[in-house]
Amino acid sequence: MGPGEKATAKERENAYQLGRLIAREGWVLLSGGRNAGVMDAANKGAKASGGLTVGILPSDNFEAVSEAVDIAIATDMGNARNNINVLSCRAIVACGMGLGTASEVALALKAGKSVILFTDSQESIKFFTNLAPKQVYLADNPETVIEIAKEILSKSV
Amino acid sequence: MGPGEKATAKERENAYQLGRLIAREGWVLLSGGRNAGVMDAANKGAKASGGLTVGILPSDNFEAVSEAVDIAIATDMGNARNNINVLSCRAIVACGMGLGTASEVALALKAGKSVILFTDSQESIKFFTNLAPKQVYLADNPETVIEIAKEILSKSV
Amino acid sequence: MGPGEKATAKERENAYQLGRLIAREGWVLLSGGRNAGVMDAANKGAKASGGLTVGILPSDNFEAVSEAVDIAIATDMGNARNNINVLSCRAIVACGMGLGTASEVALALKAGKSVILFTDSQESIKFFTNLAPKQVYLADNPETVIEIAKEILSKSV
Amino acid sequence: MGPGEKATAKERENAYQLGRLIAREGWVLLSGGRNAGVMDAANKGAKASGGLTVGILPSDNFEAVSEAVDIAIATDMGNARNNINVLSCRAIVACGMGLGTASEVALALKAGKSVILFTDSQESIKFFTNLAPKQVYLADNPETVIEIAKEILSKSV
Repeated sequence: MGPGEKATAKERENAYQLGRLIAREGWVLLSGGRNAGVMDAANKGAKASGGLTVGILPSDNFEAVSEAVDIAIATDMGNARNNINVLSCRAIVACGMGLGTASEVALALKAGKSVILFTDSQESIKFFTNLAPKQVYLADNPETVIEIAKEILSKSV
Repeated sequence: MGPGEKATAKERENAYQLGRLIAREGWVLLSGGRNAGVMDAANKGAKASGGLTVGILPSDNFEAVSEAVDIAIATDMGNARNNINVLSCRAIVACGMGLGTASEVALALKAGKSVILFTDSQESIKFFTNLAPKQVYLADNPETVIEIAKEILSKSV
Repeated sequence: MGPGEKATAKERENAYQLGRLIAREGWVLLSGGRNAGVMDAANKGAKASGGLTVGILPSDNFEAVSEAVDIAIATDMGNARNNINVLSCRAIVACGMGLGTASEVALALKAGKSVILFTDSQESIKFFTNLAPKQVYLADNPETVIEIAKEILSKSV
Repeated sequence: MGPGEKATAKERENAYQLGRLIAREGWVLLSGGRNAGVMDAANKGAKASGGLTVGILPSDNFEAVSEAVDIAIATDMGNARNNINVLSCRAIVACGMGLGTASEVALALKAGKSVILFTDSQESIKFFTNLAPKQVYLADNPETVIEIAKEILSKSV
């Protein structure tokens, strides 16, 4: 999960590398599916490493889907689809932070899921760590994200 | 799409054969994802032919997912997820008829999609043909479903 | 529930009269909320008799709301909001029949609710009666709808 | 909007007073509708002042509804209903902060809405103000919330 149009170059690069590593683990990458920002970059990274990608779109059609999404789901639910994104994942990474991402992190934690914050935003780290200290993990590079994700997956059934 | 727990043996067999043929075409099979009835049978057929299967679950978890679903989406939306099912498909088949299936056919037609009714229920055929004559196709065996689906796909962008 | 733009003059008149009677019973009228067809007419009838009206809109804004809706809910869920419509009502009336209405009747019956079909469409009556014989009631005038609704309400908790 | 079971005594008292003032303005109070925490207290305050209350429930039934909700909407969407809550309101107040509330504030800001943070949580204030500085207002008592809400309403169409 991460910002769309407002994603920084660094966030996109991080997402691309993360997508590559996720695919190398043999994991399916699930994202919001649009051809913008972190979603698009992560999907492209995953495809560059031969992964399988799923995109949960806010729209009722496929017009704005990332070209690197293999399986596109059209929800027609707008941002309420953010809840589907997090419920469908076994490990959740916020790569950067924005309003949509914030809603996804909050919904994931509300559902009892663990979330990896891959951001240097101290406001974000303090806010979510304070709300759910046992469910929030911090990472500052893609390799660490993967290590933490493995730990999360090993605990979930 | 098709009945869950109430599916007949014939509907399950039809769904299984249809799943096989869908996979042989190289198409992705999308269903409601539960381990019951037409959903479960179609997914098992698709896997038996090496296909890729997606299940859009009504629940917030994966407890009731068919073992033959590769990619499970947890919507936590109950039967409102039926709208996602039909919006996400390029060709829709109703294999048998039940209340959930009826809602899916109605929602698909409402969204302007074509639907193949694979059923011998004359009430169903009359009802939906009357409501949307140009969007409803009829089939009485899996091979015909595939032929009609190819026609539908050739018309959609 | 009933057709929007495609509603006939007779369906609108029936909906208006039904809205009046619903308000006179002191019941809250819930509809899909748009300024079209049966929804709009039923709301106008209810307001003409001093009732309270709730509209569950498919959109994320209030642009297309009926002027006779007191409380508008913006779902941004498109036709998936049809499930909310029926889950939120204690008695459900289909005034006429269309694709959206068909999905609502199917979703209501799927949820175990009783539905009053106020239509002379024999295809509709046969289709839904066959699928859920114990939950479908038939009416051919607004007064009978109210009598049946009272019976349904007396059975629900 | 505000915490449910985890709401503090102070947050409940604030919500009750806010409910009273909202009703006195003649405004409709919309909340998540459950019989817990800030939702329940705000509804009770509004009813104590003769207001009208709407509750958008996460469930498919009315079992957990606050007794002070007049109009209950059963969404069966779990926390995805949080998006409906904020889209349906013209002015949004976060009375306290929790995971569900955080998702609502984020979804509201994402939709371009203004939000009044009625909390002394500095982490919350910094986090949301940083993400959407022009849309976030701060208040530390119910009377100030009402004044800001009037300003927000005067700007919206």
